[in-house]
Amino acid sequence: MSSMFGENIKISIFGESHGEAIGVVLDGLPAGEKIDMCAVREQMKRRAPGNSETATSRKESDLPRILSGILNNITTGAPLAAIIENSNTRSKDYSDFRTKPRPGHADFAADIKYKGYNDISGGGHFSGRLTACMVFAGAICRQILKRKGIEIAAHIYSIGNVLDKPFNPLGVDAEVVKNLNNSAFALIDLNKKSPMHDEIMQAKKENDSIGGIIECIAMGVPAGLGSPIFGGVENRISSIMFGIPAVKGIEFGLGFESSRKRGSQNNDEFYYEDNIIRTKTNNSGGILGGISDGMPILFRVAVKPTPSISLVQKTVDLKNKIDSDLEIKGRHDPCIVPRAVPVVEAACAIALLDMSLAII
Amino acid sequence: MSSMFGENIKISIFGESHGEAIGVVLDGLPAGEKIDMCAVREQMKRRAPGNSETATSRKESDLPRILSGILNNITTGAPLAAIIENSNTRSKDYSDFRTKPRPGHADFAADIKYKGYNDISGGGHFSGRLTACMVFAGAICRQILKRKGIEIAAHIYSIGNVLDKPFNPLGVDAEVVKNLNNSAFALIDLNKKSPMHDEIMQAKKENDSIGGIIECIAMGVPAGLGSPIFGGVENRISSIMFGIPAVKGIEFGLGFESSRKRGSQNNDEFYYEDNIIRTKTNNSGGILGGISDGMPILFRVAVKPTPSISLVQKTVDLKNKIDSDLEIKGRHDPCIVPRAVPVVEAACAIALLDMSLAII
Amino acid sequence: MSSMFGENIKISIFGESHGEAIGVVLDGLPAGEKIDMCAVREQMKRRAPGNSETATSRKESDLPRILSGILNNITTGAPLAAIIENSNTRSKDYSDFRTKPRPGHADFAADIKYKGYNDISGGGHFSGRLTACMVFAGAICRQILKRKGIEIAAHIYSIGNVLDKPFNPLGVDAEVVKNLNNSAFALIDLNKKSPMHDEIMQAKKENDSIGGIIECIAMGVPAGLGSPIFGGVENRISSIMFGIPAVKGIEFGLGFESSRKRGSQNNDEFYYEDNIIRTKTNNSGGILGGISDGMPILFRVAVKPTPSISLVQKTVDLKNKIDSDLEIKGRHDPCIVPRAVPVVEAACAIALLDMSLAII
Amino acid sequence: MSSMFGENIKISIFGESHGEAIGVVLDGLPAGEKIDMCAVREQMKRRAPGNSETATSRKESDLPRILSGILNNITTGAPLAAIIENSNTRSKDYSDFRTKPRPGHADFAADIKYKGYNDISGGGHFSGRLTACMVFAGAICRQILKRKGIEIAAHIYSIGNVLDKPFNPLGVDAEVVKNLNNSAFALIDLNKKSPMHDEIMQAKKENDSIGGIIECIAMGVPAGLGSPIFGGVENRISSIMFGIPAVKGIEFGLGFESSRKRGSQNNDEFYYEDNIIRTKTNNSGGILGGISDGMPILFRVAVKPTPSISLVQKTVDLKNKIDSDLEIKGRHDPCIVPRAVPVVEAACAIALLDMSLAII
Repeated sequence: MSSMFGENIKISIFGESHGEAIGVVLDGLPAGEKIDMCAVREQMKRRAPGNSETATSRKESDLPRILSGILNNITTGAPLAAIIENSNTRSKDYSDFRTKPRPGHADFAADIKYKGYNDISGGGHFSGRLTACMVFAGAICRQILKRKGIEIAAHIYSIGNVLDKPFNPLGVDAEVVKNLNNSAFALIDLNKKSPMHDEIMQAKKENDSIGGIIECIAMGVPAGLGSPIFGGVENRISSIMFGIPAVKGIEFGLGFESSRKRGSQNNDEFYYEDNIIRTKTNNSGGILGGISDGMPILFRVAVKPTPSISLVQKTVDLKNKIDSDLEIKGRHDPCIVPRAVPVVEAACAIALLDMSLAII
Repeated sequence: MSSMFGENIKISIFGESHGEAIGVVLDGLPAGEKIDMCAVREQMKRRAPGNSETATSRKESDLPRILSGILNNITTGAPLAAIIENSNTRSKDYSDFRTKPRPGHADFAADIKYKGYNDISGGGHFSGRLTACMVFAGAICRQILKRKGIEIAAHIYSIGNVLDKPFNPLGVDAEVVKNLNNSAFALIDLNKKSPMHDEIMQAKKENDSIGGIIECIAMGVPAGLGSPIFGGVENRISSIMFGIPAVKGIEFGLGFESSRKRGSQNNDEFYYEDNIIRTKTNNSGGILGGISDGMPILFRVAVKPTPSISLVQKTVDLKNKIDSDLEIKGRHDPCIVPRAVPVVEAACAIALLDMSLAII
Repeated sequence: MSSMFGENIKISIFGESHGEAIGVVLDGLPAGEKIDMCAVREQMKRRAPGNSETATSRKESDLPRILSGILNNITTGAPLAAIIENSNTRSKDYSDFRTKPRPGHADFAADIKYKGYNDISGGGHFSGRLTACMVFAGAICRQILKRKGIEIAAHIYSIGNVLDKPFNPLGVDAEVVKNLNNSAFALIDLNKKSPMHDEIMQAKKENDSIGGIIECIAMGVPAGLGSPIFGGVENRISSIMFGIPAVKGIEFGLGFESSRKRGSQNNDEFYYEDNIIRTKTNNSGGILGGISDGMPILFRVAVKPTPSISLVQKTVDLKNKIDSDLEIKGRHDPCIVPRAVPVVEAACAIALLDMSLAII
Repeated sequence: MSSMFGENIKISIFGESHGEAIGVVLDGLPAGEKIDMCAVREQMKRRAPGNSETATSRKESDLPRILSGILNNITTGAPLAAIIENSNTRSKDYSDFRTKPRPGHADFAADIKYKGYNDISGGGHFSGRLTACMVFAGAICRQILKRKGIEIAAHIYSIGNVLDKPFNPLGVDAEVVKNLNNSAFALIDLNKKSPMHDEIMQAKKENDSIGGIIECIAMGVPAGLGSPIFGGVENRISSIMFGIPAVKGIEFGLGFESSRKRGSQNNDEFYYEDNIIRTKTNNSGGILGGISDGMPILFRVAVKPTPSISLVQKTVDLKNKIDSDLEIKGRHDPCIVPRAVPVVEAACAIALLDMSLAII
């Protein structure tokens, strides 16, 4: 599928980091949906760089320009297209990476795949900058989902070894959702901000970077979403999550921990609460047999440490066919986890809206 | 996509556990590929129940009948269809689960989705039995991959808290691959068979079940497979892996562990070895920016404990709208991990062949 | 897409004419739809050979065996799979065509495409026999459409130069629909049966064959079906119709005739009839901008004369690389148009159900 | 699929006629293809309005702005996106059509589908202006096809009852191809320009419009393109052609005429010419069983007369729920056939490149 995702809505992401513009097309959105563009911009701001000292200091306006699909702030039903101009000029900083691929980056793999023709500047089509398009698309989708009673929130589950308080798998207060949705450093336990911040600044000070985990919850998802075998909620969400650069793992509910459990510990028993069927625990992450069961959808994604670090690294020199040293200059996020939180929420929104538009 | 997967080859799985037959169509296989049906049956035998006391004692022949797409043991290029007859008669054992959904099973979610019309007997379309179709399809695909120099192996990484020796991420000996590919209880360190067996038998004795982790490696995958953003190797492999019932998580390379690493620890440095570019470590699992980099593809999937346990569980009685007790009778795998190993290999083969048939 | 069609329901057709069996999977059918299997068989009988002297005298039972997706005559929501066993043994009649491709058949093109590995016996996967699967799938779909108020009928518009009375584009009586739906030689004006029959028998007598045109109407299609540009009703219907062997053209409404019209003659003016908006004429065939407008969908497909004729023809001898003569033995339809009528109806039903399952 | 097309390359068209911009994304183009932007612009100029008195006098620059996917005039392998700004301001001319749908236009069908939220100005997403995106995409694709030896040409087969000389189905001289590819009024027999021109001007004088037929040929297409049943060359080409507004029919080779032929007349006999297998005639239009046979692909599309005419027409008044008169003001093409010729060529190029990128 390349840079396209979806079955009922199809999103097509395009652009290279230092090209003319990046952008996204959403094809299949229902007509008549009111879109609050301020709310869209708020979400994009959460992802934008330059917000804090834990992020890259590069400034981007990242303001999307809607080209089609919205008239008087209401979706027309035609494909919604938006672009974000690339104000940064094409950088010479990157010319080196054509011959000296950066460890942990797509440079080498892309060079092989595209026979050396890929745009390497700023990471090209592989740049994290492309996630701005995902946040834009997700910000549209979540407004539509909200009208269906579905809310999505994510937080920094961990930075290195510092952990936030996890979500209650049975559900999260509206207040918490709201706070997380508006935060550029989304935490449940605000006391963890300082130790996490320290962890990041320590890595930065050592010219290094650090990874983390993001946890995401979707509440109000009705039972019955998703299809069996390859069309399940897990298949679809995992499929989009790995579209976020640096994501290296995903688990639903108890996830890897369930591999160490007994069935009697892991099974979620059903019960009636006010005539509504719920489960006492939510180890399944709200998904059974690929189908949502009405409990919150819960998952975590592992984010690797930013591969761009200032420390000298070993790599190859493709031109001279010898081993070589590489020093990556410029500004980089010592940790992309905080900025990836709204991206995870957005990707989740896209996948859920796509599934919720299927006639069951 | 429901029960279909793939872009260049498309597989369509059908069938219900206690229906007439289950089966699979592979559309898009290249013509002229010799298929060794013995090898296919060998793979199916690894997954078949009744092999050992750690598996369900139910007997199935599971012999596939090829309906089309193969002539004189060579693919014709037309869709390859095969069915496996369901010799077991429709069981009354399951009629209860229509009104008393089993915890950890799709019963409840499916009942909502299909308005009560789904075939519940034997788990219907959600049954693990459907994975026989995946193993069949994968057994075809891996023979074609092998001719391209790609070998796939998986092993029981863990059962509960008992761990096998992990794969060397830089590559595995042909001998090990061969042993694993022929084993019904695939281990690298055979000394772990006994403690793992004990773990399973202990759970069984307590009318319970136990989960585990499966690790899979694909060697010989050329650099350049996969597409950026949504079409990456991780997206495609994760998307198919969650088609295996009970899989609740997937991680590539270091996976979740990378979230606790520094960039300098996690990045895989490139170097020349006999004029071939390799990485000194393989924390990325052979995938950078979604594209294979020529190193082994490495991933692990978390398998939850079998939800069918003999212990009495709480659930709801949908008919009387009250909470209720449930006792699941019949024979069940106390641990499906050993039998899921060939399924993981097969699913990996399908995804890799699908990607390798894309013109880059 | 190869042998798959559809977006909301996906059908996958498999099988080779003289292989073990042919079959079809319908993935995505709604659950809870009652299926009248007698009505399905009635439709299949209309297409089956051996009905009359204008058709091939080969006998086939063509009785489908349902493997999954239906329980107690009601769809379960899981993929519906059915197979039709091939009772005819693999024929030696066809071995010649590997080296001497039949004019007008896929033999040569397929030989190149599949490097000589395709199953040539009986036409293999290109055989008209595969349309039995389409009729089966369509017979299921039209029962579901009927409950939505949509009825489909087709008739033999022409055989050679003999024309039936055309459909009234504004709508057709229920009586006519019923008669056509039950006929093996579907005509509006029954007086045309004899001259059409003569036309066919004359061709047969001369060891030749004859083509014709089929006209199809779908009534009760609500306004709003189809998507703009590539997802329009015309795109989808034409896309499936060319899946019927021998179809070489399709036109909607006035079709090619509209190319000779003025806008003032071709435009369909709107008016109110009992508060319902209709058009006075239906030159558009019920489709404007790709979207249904509530008037009957009307189209015609051109069917070429059966390429299998008994007359000696010129072809090449691939083995000896020389020009050669070819005499095709065996029984063939001198005209496939009558038997193709239910296939066109079925294909139309599949396309319309697929579109009607999209959330607009 | 809505406004997306393709399997190996996927194109996504967006935009509304009087919105900010229209545009297109081509995802899946091979990297390393040199693109001559002058040649692209030449093709776009052929479609652009304002070229002659037989076309609308509205002026558009229609110059595409490449946003991504091309670096130094060479494809990078990343999605190629381009936009065309809409310089025309949103017109009040169209406000009427919300309540008084134009006969022959999508206004009414779209109003139902999009519940009145579609952008109606200039025809919105249904505007013929969107074909500029197809011409752009096709102009890229045909440059790649040319390097594979595939050339495409189309001409005005007829305007009303005035016919051009048809293509020789066995092949067309390079000179003819070149002339047609550079012409804004593409004819084989230039003597037909004057009578066709008269036909159009007469319609214009009478405040009316006129339809026509476009014939298209693709030469150099290797045998083996296309897939059986639903993936055939006819399925794919017809599927994209109906994406061109006003196309109401398509026929391949002899097309509808073949319905009146005997098999002995219609079958194309094979023979050797300089060790190459060809057919003596090309009634099949180069396609047998959906697969290309190495002969030129030949087809014709019927184009209805422009629905926008200046004559007063009857329609409904949706607001007052009564019948009403409608007078369409403004400038319109009295015949869109000449401008549609490069669109047909472009759409053919997209479909053929898409198919030729499949691994057979």
